[in-house]
Formats: sequence, structure tokens, C-alpha cells
Amino acid sequence: MNFAIAIHGGAGTIRRQFMTAEKEAEYRAGLAESLEAGHGVLARGGSALDAVMQAVLTMERNPLFNAGKGAVFTHEGVNEQDACVMDGATKAVGAVAAVKRIASPISLARMVMERSKHVLLCGEGAENFAIANGMSLVEPDYFFTQQRWDQLQLALKEEAREQKQVAQLDHSDDKKMGTVGAVALDSHGNLAAATSSGGMTNKRQGRIGDTPIIGAGTYADNATCAVSATGVGEFIMRAVLAYDIAALMQYERMILVDAANLVVMDKLTAIGGSGGIVAIDRQGNITMPFNSEGMYRGYKLADGSSEIAIFKD
Amino acid sequence: MNFAIAIHGGAGTIRRQFMTAEKEAEYRAGLAESLEAGHGVLARGGSALDAVMQAVLTMERNPLFNAGKGAVFTHEGVNEQDACVMDGATKAVGAVAAVKRIASPISLARMVMERSKHVLLCGEGAENFAIANGMSLVEPDYFFTQQRWDQLQLALKEEAREQKQVAQLDHSDDKKMGTVGAVALDSHGNLAAATSSGGMTNKRQGRIGDTPIIGAGTYADNATCAVSATGVGEFIMRAVLAYDIAALMQYERMILVDAANLVVMDKLTAIGGSGGIVAIDRQGNITMPFNSEGMYRGYKLADGSSEIAIFKD
Repeated sequence: MNFAIAIHGGAGTIRRQFMTAEKEAEYRAGLAESLEAGHGVLARGGSALDAVMQAVLTMERNPLFNAGKGAVFTHEGVNEQDACVMDGATKAVGAVAAVKRIASPISLARMVMERSKHVLLCGEGAENFAIANGMSLVEPDYFFTQQRWDQLQLALKEEAREQKQVAQLDHSDDKKMGTVGAVALDSHGNLAAATSSGGMTNKRQGRIGDTPIIGAGTYADNATCAVSATGVGEFIMRAVLAYDIAALMQYERMILVDAANLVVMDKLTAIGGSGGIVAIDRQGNITMPFNSEGMYRGYKLADGSSEIAIFKD
Repeated sequence: MNFAIAIHGGAGTIRRQFMTAEKEAEYRAGLAESLEAGHGVLARGGSALDAVMQAVLTMERNPLFNAGKGAVFTHEGVNEQDACVMDGATKAVGAVAAVKRIASPISLARMVMERSKHVLLCGEGAENFAIANGMSLVEPDYFFTQQRWDQLQLALKEEAREQKQVAQLDHSDDKKMGTVGAVALDSHGNLAAATSSGGMTNKRQGRIGDTPIIGAGTYADNATCAVSATGVGEFIMRAVLAYDIAALMQYERMILVDAANLVVMDKLTAIGGSGGIVAIDRQGNITMPFNSEGMYRGYKLADGSSEIAIFKD
């Protein structure tokens, strides 16, 4: 039986010298919990789709990660989240953008996939769809965390000082970018990808990033690979990053690791974009390249072997 | 001097037998006006970017087309529009989604491209960005046209009769899908693409289609081609349609017409998607394939030669 899962909890300027041992242990525990949740589904013969859902859900509940509970604040002091899930077996997909009152954006994305004729719903429309389908909204203060609020205040101060609009990708603390994601291969040979994100601290109202965009931040196709990205969405969208990896595999017959390296390390870097991905192919090969200083990441294979990492080396 | 422009005004079930000579003449005049506007820019040595903007603006002002003034109604009886513009020379891009009070969504998309750090803004956030940048909003009733209102009433009746959610892609009258778009090559050798759409009659609140998604409904890159799509957005997004054509040209070394045919006529058809594109490459080759019964379309070359067509044959 071959199955595997890989996850990320965001990429960015994550430097060892700014990370306390305690904080690092917390992040490692959060990643391990997510991996276990996804791996458990796969080990029980469950689908890649259910595995990536569980892995992402776990991180959405963890305030350490910039998705769900721990989402960052927009310029206006609100939390607006994006999410997408894609099933590589059917290429069915569901996504939501700029939702403000959804505790688990990835759960709403899956609901869109399963119950809507549409694939991408935004804002109030997405929230009304949630209500119509029995999902409760949370009060906006559900997403309040002191850490994220302080990050916004710092970003606003920096912006005022620099007298220009700076959407804060590299923000305070560990200067990490948000987004959590997972990709998996299940024992039936199917792939899936899921991504959920609070976006960037100090982003403007209504900004949609790469996360909910099919082929940019999220993509899955049994014919090639499953990809979940994290980083500066504006560049990832322009690069059509996730689909570009699939296209290189299909059209150039590149193997996953080569395609992913070319797209993330060469092409994304060349256009000034920063970020990383986790990706998996039909054989269970996993790659997790990033061109930022760090990326919270990990994988776990069918035999139980596993790795969790944060820094570049 | 080599330059050219191609446009579309939507694809769908457009049948000759349902089209009066008078109506056909109106559509042809609308397409001709759009082509003239774009071609004029190019003939004066202007940029492909300005040319596609003018071509799309002209159609947004024309109530015949499902974009701007003539936008269709959502299920809730509101007009929500998407638009995207991309500069193939720089790969700069701007897009807006689900905007309700913007007379010219393509103009706001260009404003996002030029004045925002972000590339995609939705809903109220996009509208507040417009206000902050000096663009006036219009009252929602600016978009009221009797024809579109009647189409929604028909769709709602049909939905009630069928007892299931049917987003109306093939709606009454000429049963056309919305969206307008343009692609151009300018005399400096640069490509650009622009697309603007009211989406589908009876779509649900907050639904985002392929139009504002980079690589799905709109894409431009001097290295390959410029593409603007029309059709059922949900399939075009899953197909990453516009970028797939570029990828086939770049990785498989296919020429534009072959890549476009493969993606639209074979691949889109195979997944059950309906629609079409206009596309142009760096040499000024134009292709306008569609797998629906008709597509409002036309092109005009540097030598002034031009063609406008609606039906399959």
C-alpha cells in the first residue's frame, strides 16, 4: 500500500535566530498534529480528499497558523479568508474568497465543491451559501488573536512611516507569510490538494490571493500531481504556479521534483516572487521547495516515516 | 508595421433561426464599433494594452453585450461583474470580481493593475478601492435592462419547474453566454488581453467566473500569446484554459492555432465545458475557436482587412 501526505504552514522570512526553542516546539507540534490527522485518514483507507481536509482543518483550528482561528488582519482590521480544495480523481473543485465569518474556510470550500453549481464564491455570497447549507457563521471576534492584531499595528506604523502602501508580507515576529496547505496520495491512487489562508497582514479589503485560484495556489490532477502553494499571492497568480508544474510534467515529461524546482526556485524567483509549495505525484514522490528563508513543512509516508522542518537547512 | 486585434462578445447557443436580420445587424455593428476602437489605437501606434481596453470599453457601454451596461442578473436580481486586463509585455495584471456598482469593470481592473499592490479585488473592497482612486460608483439601476430582467424571470421559472438549481448559461432569446473580450498585438510587438463579464443569468450571489482569473479566462505573455475566453466559467477555470494554450506553445512547441484547437475543441469539450476564445500570438496570428453553436467575434488587421462572424458556418 502506497500513500503519503505533505503539508505546509506558511513560508517567509523565518529565521532560526528569531525563533525561540519554545515557539519552534509549538510549531512542530502543530505540524505533527496536522500530519497525524491526514495520515490517519489515509492509513484507514480513506481518500486523499478527506486526508487533506483533515490536515488543513487541524491547522485552521490552531491559532499559530494564518488560516481559520489564527488568520491575520486586513488593513481595515478585519479577517478575510480564502480557501480551495481540489480532487485529483475527478478534478472537482470548490473555493471561497474573502469570507469573514467562517471558522473553517476549507470546510466551506468543500461544501461549494459538493453542493454548488459554481466553483468559486466570495464574500457575503459565500457566507449566505454557508447559511443556506446549514453552516453556522461565527462572530468576527472569533478570529481575534493578540499576536495578529499587534502585527497589523506594526504594519500600519511602518506604512505610515514609509508613506506608501505596503501590504505586509514579511511581518513582525517570525516574519512569516500565511497560508496552510496539504497534498496527499491515497491507497486508491488518487491525489488531492487543499489550501486555506488568512492572506497578508494589512492587505486591502476584498483582496483575493492565490489560495482559492485553481492552478495558482491549489491544483490536483491524477494525471500529474497535487500542489498547494504559500507565499506572495500576487506573484503566484501571475505565474499560474501550481498548474505550471503540472504542465511541465505533462508536456515536457519532467519528473515532479524537477518541475517544482524549475517553477519555484527559478521562475518564481525570476519574477521577484517569494514562497514555496508542497507537491506529490501519483507514485507518492514528495517535494517541498521554497525560495524564502523558511517554510513550515512536513510529510508522512505509508510506512510511518515522517519529517518536519522549518528552516532552510 | 504588424498589428492586429481580435474580439468576442460572448459564446453560446446562438442559432441563425432565432436571430432576426435586425438583431444580427445590431450585433455586427456593436462588434464593428469595438474593433474600430481597438484598431484605431493600434493604427496610431498605441499599445496593445490600450487597444484591448478601448475594445472592451466599447462593448461594456453597449447594452447588447453581457458586460457593463448590459450585464445579466444574479439569482437575487443584482448585477455582479468580473473583469481582468493583462499586459503581455510586463505580465502586469489587474482584476476585479463581483463588483455591483462599477459602470466599467475593465477600467477598474486596469486601475487595480496600476495603483494597487494587489492583482485581484472583490466586492465592496474593490468598490472602496474605486472610490479611493476617484472613480464614481453608479446606482445599481444603471444596469437595468428589460431584456436581462426578462431572462432572469424565465430562468427562475425554469428553475422552479425543474426543482433544481439551474444557473442559466443557455438563457432565453438568443441563448448566449455573456462575457466580452479582446486580444491585441501592437506595432511594438507587445501583446495584451482584456475580458469583462456579467457572468451567468441566475448565478448565485458572490459567484466568481473565469473572467478575472489569470490563466483561466484571461492571459497575456509576449513569450507565447494573449487569450480571452467566454463560456461556462466553472469548466474554463478547472481547465486553466488560457494558460494551457500558452503552456502548449511553450513546452510542446505547438503553434497558436493548434494549441487553441486542442484546448478548446478537444480538452474543454472532453470535460463537458462549453465556450470559446479569441487568441493572438507575437506574429499576429489570430485564432477564434469555440465549441458552442455560435460566438460573436471579429478581428481587424494592420492592412485594414477585417471579419465579423456570429454563427459556426
